[in-house]
Amino acid sequence: MLENIKLSDRVNKIQPFYVMELLARARQLEAGGRSIVHMEIGEPDFPTPEPVVLAGRAALDQGLTRYLPATGLPELKMRIAAYYSSRYGLALDPARVIVTPGSSGALQLVMSVLIDPGDSVLISDPGYPCNRNFVELVGGVPKSIPVGPDTGYQLTSELVAEAWTQDTSAVMVATPSNPTGTVLDAAELAAIHAVVRERGGVLIVDEIYQGLTYGKEGGTALALGDDLFVINSFSKYFGMTGWRVGWMVSPEAYVPAIDRLAQNIFISTSSLAQYAAIEAFSVECSSLLETRRAAFKERRDYLLPALAGLGFNIPCVPQGAFYLYTDCSELCNDSFRFSRDLLEIAGVATTPGKDFGNNQPERHIRFAYTTEIPKLKEGVVRIADFLRKR
Amino acid sequence: MLENIKLSDRVNKIQPFYVMELLARARQLEAGGRSIVHMEIGEPDFPTPEPVVLAGRAALDQGLTRYLPATGLPELKMRIAAYYSSRYGLALDPARVIVTPGSSGALQLVMSVLIDPGDSVLISDPGYPCNRNFVELVGGVPKSIPVGPDTGYQLTSELVAEAWTQDTSAVMVATPSNPTGTVLDAAELAAIHAVVRERGGVLIVDEIYQGLTYGKEGGTALALGDDLFVINSFSKYFGMTGWRVGWMVSPEAYVPAIDRLAQNIFISTSSLAQYAAIEAFSVECSSLLETRRAAFKERRDYLLPALAGLGFNIPCVPQGAFYLYTDCSELCNDSFRFSRDLLEIAGVATTPGKDFGNNQPERHIRFAYTTEIPKLKEGVVRIADFLRKR
Repeated sequence: MLENIKLSDRVNKIQPFYVMELLARARQLEAGGRSIVHMEIGEPDFPTPEPVVLAGRAALDQGLTRYLPATGLPELKMRIAAYYSSRYGLALDPARVIVTPGSSGALQLVMSVLIDPGDSVLISDPGYPCNRNFVELVGGVPKSIPVGPDTGYQLTSELVAEAWTQDTSAVMVATPSNPTGTVLDAAELAAIHAVVRERGGVLIVDEIYQGLTYGKEGGTALALGDDLFVINSFSKYFGMTGWRVGWMVSPEAYVPAIDRLAQNIFISTSSLAQYAAIEAFSVECSSLLETRRAAFKERRDYLLPALAGLGFNIPCVPQGAFYLYTDCSELCNDSFRFSRDLLEIAGVATTPGKDFGNNQPERHIRFAYTTEIPKLKEGVVRIADFLRKR
Repeated sequence: MLENIKLSDRVNKIQPFYVMELLARARQLEAGGRSIVHMEIGEPDFPTPEPVVLAGRAALDQGLTRYLPATGLPELKMRIAAYYSSRYGLALDPARVIVTPGSSGALQLVMSVLIDPGDSVLISDPGYPCNRNFVELVGGVPKSIPVGPDTGYQLTSELVAEAWTQDTSAVMVATPSNPTGTVLDAAELAAIHAVVRERGGVLIVDEIYQGLTYGKEGGTALALGDDLFVINSFSKYFGMTGWRVGWMVSPEAYVPAIDRLAQNIFISTSSLAQYAAIEAFSVECSSLLETRRAAFKERRDYLLPALAGLGFNIPCVPQGAFYLYTDCSELCNDSFRFSRDLLEIAGVATTPGKDFGNNQPERHIRFAYTTEIPKLKEGVVRIADFLRKR
């Protein structure tokens, strides 16, 4: 049995996800008979669409379980390119599409290809917590830029220009964003792109929640040019979390290096997931996904005013994803403790701001509306009750 | 369109797999109507065993396509631990089992957790080509130690002791090995383990081809102690390549750090693959896999003397995997060119030594017996014909 182990610096720096602790505690409470309303989970409650499941079954029956090319099944790459054409009016060479083991795989590839030790990458705080670790994994320096309601919790071209230093190599934005659900304004995104391009850096746009927008249809950053990276996923809009399949669109010149790297670190992405994902673009599936999008919108439209009525401040109406990032400073001065109390006392699981960065995390809590409205209502009643009684 | 792109140093250092070029050319020849005998492919020709396929289908039917815990489905971890008990007589805490997206995922986790920039890792040359890149991905220095027939193409405790320097953090061995198919002698492995332990390093044992041994049953390095890492896979012996599921067994003390890292870089391993893999340990599956092992043995027993008869020198009889690493220096002085000629002229695809390191690659060619005996025979006839006519 080892006592003194030496861990790499990078691993020592990785913060645990506090939500995992809360989730484990929630499961424990449930095992003991308590009812818990889950508003912490970043996974759609809808099952994988039936046409995708059927395609997966057909692939299984045909024995399509062998290695595929490292950058993806050619037919799937074509379907992804065709999707950009039909939905976003954008002609895209399928050779620029790289299929990956979830968007996690894409984030890893892009950082590994772009970042040398010491290079910095500008990211927003709050933001997706893994981004920082993908940068550090390859010896890069994640530079968090605090963002707030004044910019819709998004970077701006001005913030990027101010934060840029000689060691900056890349900028990452997410639209719609996790944890805030906000969408980057198209003109602002274009301005960020221009600043990054001017300085010789690379723009990486996380479009993992693409499709999940409520109100006007979101676009794609690919419309801005062919010199940026776009990261996407079949997990969220397409309901394929556990299949582990995503993609990125890369500038053409990087493709050979990405291919070499993917051959080495992944060999290939799950074959079944790739054959199944082809059906995610079918007409039948699209219409089902649009129904689900409407359901998410309905949930947002219920939950946002309900939480606001309890004293959670939501200064920017989130137009996408399935999250509400709330300022709870009128209700508590320590959101982590508050989140724990909500779980222990009220039986409602949420994600504390701590999981998304260092920019006033103690004032924020994220609610996910990945559960049906009756449960959301039950959660709201429980929270109201908790606030009244304490 | 970008013209001058900046790639990270690590990516610039990654060599392409020459076999990929040959494979692409083979496909091109086949598309043009040529018949090609494939002896280059490191993937079993047998399909995924039926019990595993059925379990995958059942998981699909039950909608088991959601995220799972980052270190793996608890039931699968228990089955893996039970396998070590029933097959190798070894008690193992399932908490030490980490399920990964193929052994590729395991290799990445172990390097990321152990290696800081500048740390070196001792590996054998020839060896699995990706190992070097997994080390470099995290800023480590792969130190290749040339090995030859005198040590069964394996490291020895003496070689490790000689090559050890102050910056050495870890040693990696593979048994059975790719590309040589040789098995590390149990006493030698114990001696290597002792040397590494004495110097405060960590031993990583690649057992990806475990189960595929011909003659005496191979063991597991876990029998040596609980302070080493073992990497394994469902791809080779269990016939699940494209599913992308493997595992590692970690010393207990590293598990929390590995869990944190896996949460960040993978989220989780394919759910369907994990539910399906449970059945890989069923009685029905085991008996099928033993039949396949017998078929591989028969192929080796045919191919080895056949190639030797043509002038390919195979100084160590490989006891495992499905490869013959041959010295072709009596037949040519440039194995890469020879491999190309075998493809273009004889219609036989092989893998040149170049893909496995810098230790006399020009003298070596790897043959994979991942195809049935009639095809292997056809390949041998074609090579004989080619050698006679040139």
